[in-house]
Amino acid sequence: MTLSPVLIAGAWRQAQNPVGDFTAVNPATRIALPDVYPVSGWPEVEIALHAAQEAVSILRTAPCELLANFLEQYAANIERRADALVEMAHLETALPQIPRLRAVELPRTADQLRQAAAAVRDRSWRHATLDVARNIRSIYAPLGGAVAVFGPNNFPFAFNSVAGGDFAAAIAAGNPVIAKANTGHPGTTRLFAEAAFEAIQHTGLPPATVQLLYRIPPDAGFQLVSHPLIGATGFTGSRAAGLKLKEAADRAGKPIYLELSSINPIFVLPGALHERLEAIAAELFASCSLGVGQFCTKPGFVVLMQDAASETFLAAVREHFVSPPGILLGAGGVRTIAQAVEKMQHYGAEVLTGGEEVAGDGFCYANTLLTVSGDTYLENPHALQIEAFGVVSLVVLARDAAQMQEIARSLEGNLTGSFYTHSQGTDDALYDQIAPIVRDRVGRLLNDKMPTGVAVSPAMNHGGPYPATGHPGFTAVGIPAAMLRFTALHCYDNVRPHRLPPELQDRNPTGTMWRIINGSWTQADA
Amino acid sequence: MTLSPVLIAGAWRQAQNPVGDFTAVNPATRIALPDVYPVSGWPEVEIALHAAQEAVSILRTAPCELLANFLEQYAANIERRADALVEMAHLETALPQIPRLRAVELPRTADQLRQAAAAVRDRSWRHATLDVARNIRSIYAPLGGAVAVFGPNNFPFAFNSVAGGDFAAAIAAGNPVIAKANTGHPGTTRLFAEAAFEAIQHTGLPPATVQLLYRIPPDAGFQLVSHPLIGATGFTGSRAAGLKLKEAADRAGKPIYLELSSINPIFVLPGALHERLEAIAAELFASCSLGVGQFCTKPGFVVLMQDAASETFLAAVREHFVSPPGILLGAGGVRTIAQAVEKMQHYGAEVLTGGEEVAGDGFCYANTLLTVSGDTYLENPHALQIEAFGVVSLVVLARDAAQMQEIARSLEGNLTGSFYTHSQGTDDALYDQIAPIVRDRVGRLLNDKMPTGVAVSPAMNHGGPYPATGHPGFTAVGIPAAMLRFTALHCYDNVRPHRLPPELQDRNPTGTMWRIINGSWTQADA
Repeated sequence: MTLSPVLIAGAWRQAQNPVGDFTAVNPATRIALPDVYPVSGWPEVEIALHAAQEAVSILRTAPCELLANFLEQYAANIERRADALVEMAHLETALPQIPRLRAVELPRTADQLRQAAAAVRDRSWRHATLDVARNIRSIYAPLGGAVAVFGPNNFPFAFNSVAGGDFAAAIAAGNPVIAKANTGHPGTTRLFAEAAFEAIQHTGLPPATVQLLYRIPPDAGFQLVSHPLIGATGFTGSRAAGLKLKEAADRAGKPIYLELSSINPIFVLPGALHERLEAIAAELFASCSLGVGQFCTKPGFVVLMQDAASETFLAAVREHFVSPPGILLGAGGVRTIAQAVEKMQHYGAEVLTGGEEVAGDGFCYANTLLTVSGDTYLENPHALQIEAFGVVSLVVLARDAAQMQEIARSLEGNLTGSFYTHSQGTDDALYDQIAPIVRDRVGRLLNDKMPTGVAVSPAMNHGGPYPATGHPGFTAVGIPAAMLRFTALHCYDNVRPHRLPPELQDRNPTGTMWRIINGSWTQADA
Repeated sequence: MTLSPVLIAGAWRQAQNPVGDFTAVNPATRIALPDVYPVSGWPEVEIALHAAQEAVSILRTAPCELLANFLEQYAANIERRADALVEMAHLETALPQIPRLRAVELPRTADQLRQAAAAVRDRSWRHATLDVARNIRSIYAPLGGAVAVFGPNNFPFAFNSVAGGDFAAAIAAGNPVIAKANTGHPGTTRLFAEAAFEAIQHTGLPPATVQLLYRIPPDAGFQLVSHPLIGATGFTGSRAAGLKLKEAADRAGKPIYLELSSINPIFVLPGALHERLEAIAAELFASCSLGVGQFCTKPGFVVLMQDAASETFLAAVREHFVSPPGILLGAGGVRTIAQAVEKMQHYGAEVLTGGEEVAGDGFCYANTLLTVSGDTYLENPHALQIEAFGVVSLVVLARDAAQMQEIARSLEGNLTGSFYTHSQGTDDALYDQIAPIVRDRVGRLLNDKMPTGVAVSPAMNHGGPYPATGHPGFTAVGIPAAMLRFTALHCYDNVRPHRLPPELQDRNPTGTMWRIINGSWTQADA
């Protein structure tokens, strides 16, 4: 049996003394795929850390054009390999090739890398700040250590540990990346790493700028995120795994950015139901079932005012939910959804449809709609805020405006919160009562829109208060803001001009870079 | 015995069921001062948290001018009470009234509040980002919970928990503050809180915008920083106390910004010694002895190349150090300095002068200069990187350039790192070898300058990698950058125009606020 090679220190090579191996499973057939991947032990992780440190030293003085060229070349390489990537990702995840993988996620991934390249060239993301009179100057700079990226199972392209948002942000900020593949799609990740490594060789970046391990034991993960040579970690995945990594990183004082879990509450106010009940029911199901409900931003929690319209709405939503289920990413998904639904029922939620695994070739769980009264919900609000990573949504029926406020106040930190209101303003008084409460509990507040679309926009916040993420001030999506997670603030006090980074010298290095000079943003020289 | 009142929920009142009491001690006489202060139990902290939450709700929609007016009024109130503040702080800390307290620290404190007020009015700190085509808009916003501020003992004004940098930053970002006085100067802190509360009443801010407790048991501190109603914490103080609070806050997913400890390495390169040995020796001592060595940025670690000039330099520095010691802030200072010096000696450092407590009326420890060879240092580099909060500095003598690099690489995270080099460039080759290593290990890199001056400049970074602070991306000094610690990133996706904060609406609310519209900084309307 040949194990797939790891990418370490600028070479594709066999894992040294792997501590185990694994294969991916085709979720549509439950049959293991042929390629076998190594589980790397700590010594191999340590080799990667030291190799990355060499890349850090070289990247420190490398012209930023090199990084931009790499990101663009990599995007082109990805597009050239689109067929292979789409085919492999489809085998490993059962996500549809069209439109999802080929027409949506792959272009998004390439676009994200190109946006990162543009930010690198533009340099305004560095927030160069010049106090000319005092000769104090500061700038966001790379961390001086590798960034470890742990990618999730649900976006084999756009959040891939060696191609997705965290990767693009960490590299564009000037840091080498040590990627830990999601074990659901190691083959896809390997194809990306091949494309990345070719781009590295083509553009002359230090060879260890990108490294790939497929899997490491939990202890090695804790050592990695807390190691003196690590700069920071980006993790997207389960709350349980993320919190253990967070504990290790926190203890060592190493930044770790986590995207953990979110139920994404949707408040549909009475006027909106009165105005466009059917349309909202359809929108809700479309958003819930996108990617078979395996989106961090899936609306898993809907709040309505209990009345005749809400009954009609529930019935309409239920009709959508009784459609046949899609194939989940793996056996673990079926198990955790079943546990979550069971827990909701235990705390008083009633299943309107679904609530059981569906037999067949693939991993399937019936689309599941649950409901609970506001009174029952408020008896155990934390137990009932549980992310079920599938087509599952819990509808909470509030008795009145006061109870709706109380429900809003009970919410934990979420990535998003959405409000549907009457177009002519009849819901505005209620909105004004509830929205400010939700505002402080979510990263992104939406109106008349489901949260599953996460545009790669400079104004996006894909983040939010704990436990949605580990810090309310950062976004995981959006260039250049997402890059700030992987930077240190570097101040230069009375440093001689020729020793300053070009971005902090009097002359604007590009003529277009935005800097703060003596308190004002400007593109001029100092 | 009457206990000094606490400021809770908009009223000066007696502590409810205090769990203890304490007095401040005059460090110049070792005699307790007359005023007695309560130790508040957890129930009182909880009352403060709930009161602060009411202030959060009101501040959310209050015009920002209100906060700006408050900060300016408060600055004026402080200046009006300068005599009382200076007298009390002098009694509690033994710091000289002139120039330190009256001419340096008090004006700095008032200026910082006024800079914060200007930032509030200007609003550019909010980084309003508009993606007009997609109607996605984001902004830095208050945290939605109180900020707890734990101030240090060494700056009774400029870092005071109810008047200093963290306070100004947290309030200017729109958060109420729960201040925990430093127990070394409760009377000074009370005077500040009186001035602040008057300004609150005068300007009509919610009464619980500023609250003051003098002391709380450690467990109550852990509960405070991890409470659901807390937004974030700012802590400046000892590494031991800070790390315990950090652990509690981290576990709850609550941001905590810490300024813990720093030895602030100074590299004096051979050409600089050749050129201006005497001047640098005088500068080093002046910086070391500022505030009796009780500055976070005190140069406690000096690296030289071992040669004849370094011997001459050491002798010159020693001559400065044999001057009589100043009065330390408290008995704890004498104890921890003695422990640190003992530890350095244990690991091979040799005392050139000092190394003992000095008897007398006040708390004194002799100015202490130590030296150690690079070889000996590198046997226990971590044990010898110990902050001694007094006029104590350890000189490490490197054998050659390679060893100087190794010493640089051994450094933990520091607030600052300084280089003295020959004015004509003869040290530049060595600088280029060492400075990049130091760059990644410090927040602020200096040339030809000691680090003790920390200007309140937009370009300042008073921060650095762990264990100097808890996160390398934030500064504790400098407006507006320091405010970003106390904010959440709020995104509005498809939100109706009249529901947006004024800063995110198409029209620029001030006409001068800097915003990022479609990728470019501008003061124009969208």
